[in-house]
Amino acid sequence: MKSKEEVFEELSPIFNPKAVAVIGASREKGKIGHSVYKTMKKSLNGKLYPVNPKADEILGDKSYNSIKEISEEIDLAVFTIPAKLTPKIMEECGEKEVKGAVIITSGFSEIGNKKLEKKLKEKAEEYGVRIIGPNCLGILDNTTGLNTLFLPPEKLKIPKKGGIGVISQSGAVGSVMVDWCSYENFGLSRFISFGNGIDIDERELIKFLGGDPETKVIVMYLEGTKNGRELMNAAKEVTPEKPVIVLKGGKTSEGSEAVASHTGSLAGSAEVYNSAFKQSNIVQARTMLDLLDYAEVFEKQPLPNGKKVMIMTNGGGYGVLSADEVINQGLELAEINSNLKKELRKAVPEYGDIGNPLDLLGDADASRYKKALKAIEKSKDIDAVICVQLFQTDPMEEKAIESVFEFNKNSDKPIIVVTAGAGKVQEVKEKLENGGIPVFNTPNRAVDALRSMVEYKERKDF
Amino acid sequence: MKSKEEVFEELSPIFNPKAVAVIGASREKGKIGHSVYKTMKKSLNGKLYPVNPKADEILGDKSYNSIKEISEEIDLAVFTIPAKLTPKIMEECGEKEVKGAVIITSGFSEIGNKKLEKKLKEKAEEYGVRIIGPNCLGILDNTTGLNTLFLPPEKLKIPKKGGIGVISQSGAVGSVMVDWCSYENFGLSRFISFGNGIDIDERELIKFLGGDPETKVIVMYLEGTKNGRELMNAAKEVTPEKPVIVLKGGKTSEGSEAVASHTGSLAGSAEVYNSAFKQSNIVQARTMLDLLDYAEVFEKQPLPNGKKVMIMTNGGGYGVLSADEVINQGLELAEINSNLKKELRKAVPEYGDIGNPLDLLGDADASRYKKALKAIEKSKDIDAVICVQLFQTDPMEEKAIESVFEFNKNSDKPIIVVTAGAGKVQEVKEKLENGGIPVFNTPNRAVDALRSMVEYKERKDF
Repeated sequence: MKSKEEVFEELSPIFNPKAVAVIGASREKGKIGHSVYKTMKKSLNGKLYPVNPKADEILGDKSYNSIKEISEEIDLAVFTIPAKLTPKIMEECGEKEVKGAVIITSGFSEIGNKKLEKKLKEKAEEYGVRIIGPNCLGILDNTTGLNTLFLPPEKLKIPKKGGIGVISQSGAVGSVMVDWCSYENFGLSRFISFGNGIDIDERELIKFLGGDPETKVIVMYLEGTKNGRELMNAAKEVTPEKPVIVLKGGKTSEGSEAVASHTGSLAGSAEVYNSAFKQSNIVQARTMLDLLDYAEVFEKQPLPNGKKVMIMTNGGGYGVLSADEVINQGLELAEINSNLKKELRKAVPEYGDIGNPLDLLGDADASRYKKALKAIEKSKDIDAVICVQLFQTDPMEEKAIESVFEFNKNSDKPIIVVTAGAGKVQEVKEKLENGGIPVFNTPNRAVDALRSMVEYKERKDF
Repeated sequence: MKSKEEVFEELSPIFNPKAVAVIGASREKGKIGHSVYKTMKKSLNGKLYPVNPKADEILGDKSYNSIKEISEEIDLAVFTIPAKLTPKIMEECGEKEVKGAVIITSGFSEIGNKKLEKKLKEKAEEYGVRIIGPNCLGILDNTTGLNTLFLPPEKLKIPKKGGIGVISQSGAVGSVMVDWCSYENFGLSRFISFGNGIDIDERELIKFLGGDPETKVIVMYLEGTKNGRELMNAAKEVTPEKPVIVLKGGKTSEGSEAVASHTGSLAGSAEVYNSAFKQSNIVQARTMLDLLDYAEVFEKQPLPNGKKVMIMTNGGGYGVLSADEVINQGLELAEINSNLKKELRKAVPEYGDIGNPLDLLGDADASRYKKALKAIEKSKDIDAVICVQLFQTDPMEEKAIESVFEFNKNSDKPIIVVTAGAGKVQEVKEKLENGGIPVFNTPNRAVDALRSMVEYKERKDF
């Protein structure tokens, strides 16, 4: 088995190609071959060649009749041609010695056309051309500029560059994940939609992103795998260094039937997957919201050293709800020793109690947060902080977020802010998140995300 | 016991006062007495009198030394004076025969000052003045214009008028709920923060909103009640006609300790509350997100007649996840009979299967949604629809939402749209929601909200 570093090395020409041919590039607006070529022309750091025997030039570039006519070496071919032509074109790619192909074309096993898919696969294997797809969106690589997605920018907004690597078996779910990252302003390293996955699939892609220095956390939507053992082994190699978060579709028998008619995978039993995920320390998300919440905390915050959580709040009710969540999710409320109590006393007026949750009271301003966060920065009895900041109250100031940034800089404990509301709150949320602080609108989401980190860390250290 | 109609009648002078005195109205910016007076001057449909012996006039209005100097009858007094003055002022209000008082002032039992609170309560009882508070935000009434909230509009945005009535024991949680309604553009009827609740509390407020023709659904944050039996009885009177959704804080022993130091209530055991809620058909929300999700579906959509759900999607993966959720949450996938199958066949190209989830396929456009939704409009085998519309795909058009509106108009089944993403998606979401369609970003939230309706309907019909 190849190591993750070897896989990263081997697949690099596909993700960081010096020259790319788009086979089926088109002059006609509305055609996938047109969108793909247009996008790549804008974003690619490398040479780009259109291949289309019916055109002389495409978007000002000389069009080639065949990839074999291009004199330069080609690393990657992107297919946007009808399915039935793909085996023949693959042969030409093989003769041209291209290293990889992203096959966007659909019309293979997903509509029952297994024979054609087999033929394509055999041709690629004969020449050693690696394949992503078919029936996929392909690659959006924010580290190299490669973008084979044919979705127009007004439909799918490209996220900023960052540490989240996304793998999706489903193109639609994948495009939602990418667009969601944009909406939340999360940073994306690379996104791969592998569709039918006849060659490169989730097993290899986990290793690829595992070996990728630009990816800090791997996020995946998975419906089934061809080889559970290999998936586990890939994850086991990666998770000691990098979290892998998976949302598994088809965990009920009804869901698995839907999987069969969607990606044609075997969804398998939920129990088998649950246990495999635990053994290989894959973080399991139950919903799409969890998946992206977990991605955010793992990308932005350090891992907690234990499960002792400190809660602070300017809204007693949100403190109560946070405490309920900490207990319900199997974490613990940190105990406050007498030294810390003395320090925290300075943050809370005398008519308030010192406890956990620490109620900074409804008339709390930024200075109370500053004192409280300073006091717990170095505390050995606290592993993580849930900082509730409700900006609706009168004395609460926006600058209360500065002490969160300060804490984040000085402390090795994770901190998550809980806040909710309209106008002002959304501005503050954006500032916090751009400054590396995850923000959630409920204690439930914050504590759940924290729990995912605690569990990952415990298994990692076991 | 008074009926909900009687309670509504009795408390009407407080919520719809012809004349209000603000005792402690102030000229000084930054003071609560100033904010409250300023806000009320803008929004109140009735006469407003400032009472402050230290001022001649406030915001251009003649200031009175005492409420007793005002010649007109006063329905409501709003207190923004120091706590220690409240019993004496309550006496004056009593002599003036005011009907109710909203006491915003804090500094009572919540900081251990139980004696003062008792004195205030006794004075009010002596004269029959009804109290909301103390230590509360008071009332925001979108049906009458009464607004005693002292939070500036840039901190808390007032939602549009609508059918959601909100009750909160916690001021901060309450203000978050109101601001959240604004953010999501939900319609609010009336909001009441009752704080220490020394007179009017959740038991009476449930009846009040139950008897209120403007309120379609009641949403409440509750930490504890003084009398569980009465709370249940109030709910039992209301829930046959109107859903009551409750988020209970303090369901763990740690959370309950936090409750004790927050509102001083007895949080009680989770089991007792769970069973009381079930018996009185209170819909229980586990998180703040659930609470507002449920509020949205109950306000916007009709109740389902059963638990048979039809799923349609243009993203197979989201269909799979929706099917998993339907099963996990105890609902059922509707079966498709042969007639319906024939109809649905027209909506799906021949290379796609007809099933539930119905995969309209990645190349679905608006016309496929139109045909599919039309086919199931009148189907007796379907109780509710989860309509996944992913707008990232190339052929998917915004006008696909029109057939959702059409369905909503023609059918008595609830429909919920699932969609997620940035720019365009947010625009579409807004249009759908303004047109009465709840929209969620995950199948989990959509199905969970639907489940809450199914359970409410089942208990209601039992």
